[in-house]
Amino acid sequence: MATVVDLSLVEALRAVVGEAHVLVEREDVIPYGFDGTAALKARPGAVVFPHSTEEVAGCVRLARERGVPVVTRGSGTGLSGGSVPIEGCLVVCVAQMDRIVEVDEKNLTLHAECGVITKAIDDAAQAVGLFYPPDPGSMKISTIGGNVAENSGGLRGLKYGVTRDYVMAIRVVLPDGTVTWLGNKCVKDVAGYSMKDLFVGSEGTLGIITEVILKLVPKPVARRTMLALYDSMGAAAETISAIIAAKIIPCTLEFLDKVTVGCVEDYAKIGLPTDVEALVLMETDGHPVVVEEEAEAMMRIARQCGAREVKAAANEAEGAQLAAARRNAFSALARIRPTTILEDVTVPRSELARMVGFIAEVAVRHRLQVGTFGHLGDGNLHPTFLTDERDAEEMHRVEAALEEIVNETIRLGGTVTGEHGVGLAKKAFVKRQLGEGSYELMRSIKRALDPAGLLNPGKIFDLG
Amino acid sequence: MATVVDLSLVEALRAVVGEAHVLVEREDVIPYGFDGTAALKARPGAVVFPHSTEEVAGCVRLARERGVPVVTRGSGTGLSGGSVPIEGCLVVCVAQMDRIVEVDEKNLTLHAECGVITKAIDDAAQAVGLFYPPDPGSMKISTIGGNVAENSGGLRGLKYGVTRDYVMAIRVVLPDGTVTWLGNKCVKDVAGYSMKDLFVGSEGTLGIITEVILKLVPKPVARRTMLALYDSMGAAAETISAIIAAKIIPCTLEFLDKVTVGCVEDYAKIGLPTDVEALVLMETDGHPVVVEEEAEAMMRIARQCGAREVKAAANEAEGAQLAAARRNAFSALARIRPTTILEDVTVPRSELARMVGFIAEVAVRHRLQVGTFGHLGDGNLHPTFLTDERDAEEMHRVEAALEEIVNETIRLGGTVTGEHGVGLAKKAFVKRQLGEGSYELMRSIKRALDPAGLLNPGKIFDLG
Repeated sequence: MATVVDLSLVEALRAVVGEAHVLVEREDVIPYGFDGTAALKARPGAVVFPHSTEEVAGCVRLARERGVPVVTRGSGTGLSGGSVPIEGCLVVCVAQMDRIVEVDEKNLTLHAECGVITKAIDDAAQAVGLFYPPDPGSMKISTIGGNVAENSGGLRGLKYGVTRDYVMAIRVVLPDGTVTWLGNKCVKDVAGYSMKDLFVGSEGTLGIITEVILKLVPKPVARRTMLALYDSMGAAAETISAIIAAKIIPCTLEFLDKVTVGCVEDYAKIGLPTDVEALVLMETDGHPVVVEEEAEAMMRIARQCGAREVKAAANEAEGAQLAAARRNAFSALARIRPTTILEDVTVPRSELARMVGFIAEVAVRHRLQVGTFGHLGDGNLHPTFLTDERDAEEMHRVEAALEEIVNETIRLGGTVTGEHGVGLAKKAFVKRQLGEGSYELMRSIKRALDPAGLLNPGKIFDLG
Repeated sequence: MATVVDLSLVEALRAVVGEAHVLVEREDVIPYGFDGTAALKARPGAVVFPHSTEEVAGCVRLARERGVPVVTRGSGTGLSGGSVPIEGCLVVCVAQMDRIVEVDEKNLTLHAECGVITKAIDDAAQAVGLFYPPDPGSMKISTIGGNVAENSGGLRGLKYGVTRDYVMAIRVVLPDGTVTWLGNKCVKDVAGYSMKDLFVGSEGTLGIITEVILKLVPKPVARRTMLALYDSMGAAAETISAIIAAKIIPCTLEFLDKVTVGCVEDYAKIGLPTDVEALVLMETDGHPVVVEEEAEAMMRIARQCGAREVKAAANEAEGAQLAAARRNAFSALARIRPTTILEDVTVPRSELARMVGFIAEVAVRHRLQVGTFGHLGDGNLHPTFLTDERDAEEMHRVEAALEEIVNETIRLGGTVTGEHGVGLAKKAFVKRQLGEGSYELMRSIKRALDPAGLLNPGKIFDLG
C-alpha cells in the first residue's frame, strides 16, 4: 500500500521548490482536493508548485524514493475527477509554470510550459495572425498541460479536431524522474512508436507533461455564426446529417435542448426563445467567399429540414454572444439543483437522433431532470443530470439512468467519454466499452511504465 | 533463441488457412524474402496467406506455441526493411485480405481489410464524392495495412497530414493471438490510452493489423497544379517559407533537384528542362475561388523569390503529368546505378535550405552521386545515393556520408525518418535521435506487449 507525505518528505520538497512553494496545512491544501467533478474529493498530504521541469522531476524522484503517490493538477477544471488527489498524496500543481517560451512563425509552432492558460495560447497565436483551434469550454481557465493530458475537445472539433491533433512534442517527467522530450518540430516523424500519442490523453498516469510544442494554423479570415430553432429534435439531427451529406464540414454544430435553453436564458438573458425543442448553433470559417456560400447552404438546409427559424448573426459581436450562450450551458444548468452530473457520451454521427431520443426517454422514465447539450457534429452529447447527492433515492435513479445511457452508447458503437476523460468518474464503464483485450493492453502499459503505480493511481483503471 | 518453422507447424498452418495458402518450397518463398529496401533479405521458413482476422489469429497462436517469429507483409513495398523476414520465420502475407467492407457516407468512414491496395481505398471514396488524402508514392501497389503499420506519408501531407490522421479504428491480432478492436467510428474518444495511436506506425512489432476504419473527407471541387523552375536551391527553399508566411497551406510543395530532374526526364521524356537546379511542384485544392487566389499568389511568390520560370498546368491532364514526374522520381533514379539507397531525413521547415545545402556539400566531398527530391513543404527530404553495393570502397563512402547527414539532421532538431519507418535500415540511428529516456520507454512497451519478442523481431530496435 502507498505511503503518505511525511515531514521528512516535506523538508526535502522545500529544498527542491523553495519553502514558499509547498503547502501542507489543512486549510491550505483543501482547495487542491477536488476538481470540476461533482462529489469527488480527498485531502492531499502536501501541494507543491514547481517552476521548472527540473523541479517537477526532483519532486517525483523524492516521492518515488518514499513510495508516495503523485497527482498532477493544473487549474483543476477537469470533469472526470482526473486530478482529484488520493488521501495523503503529493499534489504537483503546475499552474505557476506559465511561460510561453516561443512562437515560431516559420514552423507554425508554439512552445509553452504546461501551466499556460489555453486561451493565452490562442491569444499569442492570434497576435501573429495564427490560430490554435482547440477550444474546450473551460479554455479561459484551464491549462494547456491539462488539455493535453485529457486530450480535450471543444466547440470546433468537427472541422479542426481535438487537442491531440495539435500536439507536436511534449516534455515529460517519467515515473522514475527521468526527463525526456517526445516528438519534435517536424511535421512528419516515424522514428519508432509515437510515444507522444500514448501520453496525450493518458490523464497523468504515465508521466507529468511539463512543456508542449503545439501546431498552429493560419487564422481564418472570415467567420459566420448562425442559429437554427427547432420544434423537434429529430429535425435538428436531420439537419446535421444533411449538412454533412452536402459535403460541408462547418467548424461548429452545437446544440442545446429545451431544458438547457431555458436555463441559459434564465442565466444570461440574451433573448433566446424558451419554447423550442432544440437550438442549433452553426459556425463556418475560412475564406470569405466559401464562408458566405457555406452559410447560405447551411441555413437553406436547416429550413428544408424543418427549422422553425434560422438566422445569421449580424456581426462578429452578435456571433460571439450566440457562442457564449452555448459556452454558458454547463454553468447555467449547474445553478438549478445542488448536484450536477455531466455525462460525455459520444456516438457515431449516424446514431445521434437515436441517442438523443433515448436520453430523453430515459429521463422521463426515471423521473429525472436532464438538460442535454453538446457537439452535435461530433456525435458528442452532454446529458446533464440536475439532482441532489443528499437524496439517496433520487441518486439511485440517476445511477440507473446513467447505466442505461452507457449501455445504449456502447450498443450503438459509441464511447463513454468523448472529451472529458475517464478519471474516476467513468472508470466503471471503460472495460465494458473496450472489451477485455484492449483493456488489458492498457493496463499492461501502465504496469510497464509505472511499475510502482505511483503516478495518479486509480485513475482510468485499477491495477488490481 | 527463436526457433524456425518445422513440418508439424506447416501442417497445423495448413489446417488453419487451407493447403493452397501455405508456401514452403525454397523457390516459392524467396519472393517473400525482401521488400523495397536495397540489400536486405532472408529466407522465411513458410509463407501463409490468411483470408480473415480469425485465420491470422490462428497462425499467430500456432507460431507462438512453438516460439517461431512472425513477420507480416502486404505488398512488400516498404523502404526501411520493415517486412524483411528473419531466416526460417513464418511470414504472414495479408495481400489476399483485400475486401472493402463498407463505405459509410453518413459517418464519412471506410472499413477495409488490411490487404486492400491504397489506391482502391481512394477510388472507393471518390466514387461517392469523398476522398482519402494520404497518397504514398507506392499507393498503386502498397496495402493499407502496410500504410497504417508504417504511418505512411505522401505528397499531400502539408495540408492533409499523414496516414495516422485518417485512422479511426484498427482491428489487431495481439502477440498472444487475442483479437481486439482499437478505436471506433466516433470522431472523439478519450476512453483510456489511445492504443490505436500506439499501433499506428509500430511497424508490425506489437500486433498484426487486420482491418481498418478510415476517415474520409469531402472531395475538393477544384485543383491547380503549378511548376516553378529555379537556378538556385536557396530560391526554391525561400519560396516555401514565403508561401507559409503568406498564410497559405497548399496541399503539395514537392521538389526535385538537378540530378533527379535529369533522371526523370531521361526516364519519362515529358519535356522537363534538365539545366535547372531545382524544380518545385506546387498544388492547391479546394473551393474554386480559393484555388484560383492561392494559385495566383503562389506563382507570384515563386517569381518574387527568383524562380526562372513559373507555369500553371493548363488542365487536369497536364497537372497529373507533372505530378507523375514527381511520383517517378525514385524509379527514375533507381535505373542509373545497381544500388539505390534512399534516405528519408526530415527537419523543421525553417532548416530546409540548410539541410539541402548540407546534403549537396556532403555528396561532393565524398565523391558520391546523390539525387535529392522530397516533400519540401513538410521538411521531408529523400537524398538518394546512386551506388553499387559490390563496390566496398564506394559503400564505405556512402556510409560515411549517411552518418554525416543523420548527425546534421539530429542537430537541426529533425528526424531520421519522416515517412519510411525505422525497420532494419534506420535502427542504428534511432537511439541517437530519441535519447536514452524515450528509447527505453519504447523498448519497455515492446517487452510488455510481446514478452517473447516473436512479432517482427529486430525491427525498430533490438531488445537486448
